[in-house]
Amino acid sequence: MAEKLRIIPLGGLNEIGKNLTVLEYGKDIIIIDCGLGFPEDDMYGVDLVIADTSYLEKNRQKIRGMFLTHGHEDHIGGIPYAMRQFNCPIHATRLTAGIVKLKLEEHELSDTVKLFTHEAGEVVKAGCFTVEFIHVNHSIADAVAFAIKTPVGTVIFTGDFKIDPTAEDGMMDLTRLGELGREGVLALLCDSTNVERQGYTPSERIVAEGFDRQFAGCNNRIIVTTFASNAFRLQSLITVAHKYGRKVAVTGRSMENILKVSTELGYLKIPNGTLVDINAIRTLPKNKIVIVSTGSQGENMSALYRMAFSGHRQVEIQAGDRVIISASAIPGNEKAVSRIINELYRKGADVVCDKLADLHVSGHACQEELKLIHALVKPRFFIPVHGEQRHLQAHSRLAQTMGMDPKNIFISDIGRVLELTRTTCKWNGTVPAGKVLVDGTGVGDVGSVVLRDRKHLAQDGMLVVVVNLSGEDGSIISGPDIITRGFVYVKESENLMEELRVIAAHAIDKCLANGSRDWSVLKANIKSDLSGYLFKTTKRNPMILPVIMEI
Amino acid sequence: MAEKLRIIPLGGLNEIGKNLTVLEYGKDIIIIDCGLGFPEDDMYGVDLVIADTSYLEKNRQKIRGMFLTHGHEDHIGGIPYAMRQFNCPIHATRLTAGIVKLKLEEHELSDTVKLFTHEAGEVVKAGCFTVEFIHVNHSIADAVAFAIKTPVGTVIFTGDFKIDPTAEDGMMDLTRLGELGREGVLALLCDSTNVERQGYTPSERIVAEGFDRQFAGCNNRIIVTTFASNAFRLQSLITVAHKYGRKVAVTGRSMENILKVSTELGYLKIPNGTLVDINAIRTLPKNKIVIVSTGSQGENMSALYRMAFSGHRQVEIQAGDRVIISASAIPGNEKAVSRIINELYRKGADVVCDKLADLHVSGHACQEELKLIHALVKPRFFIPVHGEQRHLQAHSRLAQTMGMDPKNIFISDIGRVLELTRTTCKWNGTVPAGKVLVDGTGVGDVGSVVLRDRKHLAQDGMLVVVVNLSGEDGSIISGPDIITRGFVYVKESENLMEELRVIAAHAIDKCLANGSRDWSVLKANIKSDLSGYLFKTTKRNPMILPVIMEI
Repeated sequence: MAEKLRIIPLGGLNEIGKNLTVLEYGKDIIIIDCGLGFPEDDMYGVDLVIADTSYLEKNRQKIRGMFLTHGHEDHIGGIPYAMRQFNCPIHATRLTAGIVKLKLEEHELSDTVKLFTHEAGEVVKAGCFTVEFIHVNHSIADAVAFAIKTPVGTVIFTGDFKIDPTAEDGMMDLTRLGELGREGVLALLCDSTNVERQGYTPSERIVAEGFDRQFAGCNNRIIVTTFASNAFRLQSLITVAHKYGRKVAVTGRSMENILKVSTELGYLKIPNGTLVDINAIRTLPKNKIVIVSTGSQGENMSALYRMAFSGHRQVEIQAGDRVIISASAIPGNEKAVSRIINELYRKGADVVCDKLADLHVSGHACQEELKLIHALVKPRFFIPVHGEQRHLQAHSRLAQTMGMDPKNIFISDIGRVLELTRTTCKWNGTVPAGKVLVDGTGVGDVGSVVLRDRKHLAQDGMLVVVVNLSGEDGSIISGPDIITRGFVYVKESENLMEELRVIAAHAIDKCLANGSRDWSVLKANIKSDLSGYLFKTTKRNPMILPVIMEI
Repeated sequence: MAEKLRIIPLGGLNEIGKNLTVLEYGKDIIIIDCGLGFPEDDMYGVDLVIADTSYLEKNRQKIRGMFLTHGHEDHIGGIPYAMRQFNCPIHATRLTAGIVKLKLEEHELSDTVKLFTHEAGEVVKAGCFTVEFIHVNHSIADAVAFAIKTPVGTVIFTGDFKIDPTAEDGMMDLTRLGELGREGVLALLCDSTNVERQGYTPSERIVAEGFDRQFAGCNNRIIVTTFASNAFRLQSLITVAHKYGRKVAVTGRSMENILKVSTELGYLKIPNGTLVDINAIRTLPKNKIVIVSTGSQGENMSALYRMAFSGHRQVEIQAGDRVIISASAIPGNEKAVSRIINELYRKGADVVCDKLADLHVSGHACQEELKLIHALVKPRFFIPVHGEQRHLQAHSRLAQTMGMDPKNIFISDIGRVLELTRTTCKWNGTVPAGKVLVDGTGVGDVGSVVLRDRKHLAQDGMLVVVVNLSGEDGSIISGPDIITRGFVYVKESENLMEELRVIAAHAIDKCLANGSRDWSVLKANIKSDLSGYLFKTTKRNPMILPVIMEI
């Protein structure tokens, strides 16, 4: 029996982030992207989220390579963790490889992982697969789609993309997609992020024009915050700054890093003398300065945050400073961004973040662009990716309006296996998949029990009851003492604490009077008596930890 | 020396929520609104936020009455807490009074608080003030502005408002505002919520038309979620349902409550037989049902949430159900709303929430409406209210484009005192103001220390170290034992726990060897040795609680 092509998403479906897709045929596996996600609101204390890659670990001898569409964290951030589980060659374009290299160095993995650099247009063989790199537009340079020739046909992965006919690095290679479409495409996996938006995403070029309007006639300092990874936008900013005779100073670690990589690799052309050290701004007149800063998502302790809240060592916001927010808030970050904006206003800054001012454009394709791709590629099967359920279904409906048979559209989920032949596409079971939580150096050691406890502690704090019992007759030798944290302000609650001590002592006496010396019963009774009383009197439910020591 | 009019906001400036403003002249005080706010993301476990009203408590003998602009929580939710501190007569329009009455009953205060009902157009005397109720449009019926005659001139409070020429209850009384403006207005305090939006807020009427388009030709069940308090919208919905021969069932406690009050007071006209019990829907054909539900902000455990996640006792989402979200997400709620939408899609529902579908309009005035008010009222002094700093400053700029002198515009803050004569307005110090946190039955007993501990516990959990020391020589009798919660999954971290026990014991031995019997020193050493080790090995920082018992 002939082998089938297996398409297995391990991330990026029904979620934004940690994109990772597996293609398997016979004894060969290739991996597309390996991203990370950010924790949900209820994942207390979690730093980041990566994909469960146990399926890949188990099949590591099959893995022929990992292919990266572009250098955003949700497509490459999981690499250091993955490479400890299954080391494999990584293939990427130059800028993406440059960013990955930094990451590998940070994790002391640069000696053990092989990283190959390619240009759009190149084709790489990996087992039975050949992977072609196709230029696309996105909010980071050097982004690519992949056309993957497999034994049963061609699979196209768009990666994150938009179509920008006036892009600095040229429009995405629609011609090549059209040629592939004419030859016949088995399956299309296409970005769904902006599928709910009508029309076209505007060109990055309008942001350059937006900057120009903000600079023209401005006699004050200009501070701009944007996504560090968007070199096109940094280039526009530097060009406009140069035009108006302003020096550019950069602040914020990620902005400094990416500037270094982008400049070294030639993605940024900075006129001589334009870039100055942030410490030099004191010596320049106000209308000769642009400060480029991190913090466009309102991140705590980012450079813009520190400027707003007077915690930045080199920059203090001055009345009249024009602050340009060249970004839109990612869902969930609105309040954090607004908090900074309010503080900037309070310090007398003139904050420009209005969408009408053309200071940001999305990096993802809207409906009309998606339709173009579907019309060019004309796939036999369609698998919408990169989106929540609402986006995947909207993308399915869009494909149907283009005449696609709903039977040929597959809304998948992480861990679900699709098996394809030249003419068929069918579900076939699942593999392990899910979220692995990273907290500090711990990968996967924080799970649902720990999170449940953190949530409980966050809500109402906790209360430790310590008591020493006699080993002979179980009588109370010392205590019960009560220690609380995050419950009430203890100094103003002496009476309550005393009541709790009495209740705990009473619970112990009751048990002992019944002849029980079972400590788990004793603990359960202390807990239930205290929590009952606390809920009645305070409507709160702190975590109660009875600690019994036998002497 | 003549008295001055003091305007003192205790809430609603530099924040959205807990609106409360004090007007003081000589020995008279009146209060405008008494709202609550919702906790910020970092206020772990806090249920709601009210204003610090200690200034009013201290001056309770001066208080002549409280006047309410409308029945939203951010304008009336603080009343039960305030009335325990300084009982005073409350004046409100009928619907507002109806909602407040429910609230007072819930808090067993209805016998002690005097509640007076008025119509728009009425004038109420309170000490040296006379307060005129003026009809405005808003997303709740019976909303009013106040024109307050004081010994130094007229002060106008718009409250929350919009101008809706096609409102069911008639356009807001612009004529009266114009008359007052002609007579001369000393100060205007005006809603700033939507000041960043250009143009006009559309009429509530377009939502009725939006509903009609969604109902026309729909052969499935229709489920609508909206703000419970918007009786106009519920009326539109009921009218459209009746037109299409559908019965209406209501689910969610707040929706049921408000429906009861609105119907009793005549704000809802429900055709006979239209309303059915939620249990009756099983017996009706799909195209004869509308379910009206709470949950438009994605609230956990709201009726819509329970439907989406299969936890609703009477309603299970069926493929094809049309779910209409007649609301926009309040900043901070976007992800919660999206989570429900994704789940509804996953169950096969057809979710309509697109702004293009005209299913929601704001209740606040946009720029052109605000300009109308400024042009009609022509105040001598302007104090923008109801907004964050960005909104207050934008409103100040708007007033300046209308020709107002920036010297006559006062961007205030909670607790700041403005003193006015017939011709002057000046800052004069501050009074106590701030946020009082309500957690369970506790009002104000959760403060910054408790919140800091909750945050610490939420981030990395905690670790209790218990040890019994000899009262004679300080030697270890039993322990140290280690108990953790929210730190790591203990069953998989036995080795780490053993290491921590050894480190704690070593810290104790070191102290004792130095001859130290000071327990606070001992505790500090245990803490610092353990946290140093933990940070080095795990990059985490759990709260460490050493408990020492002397036997």
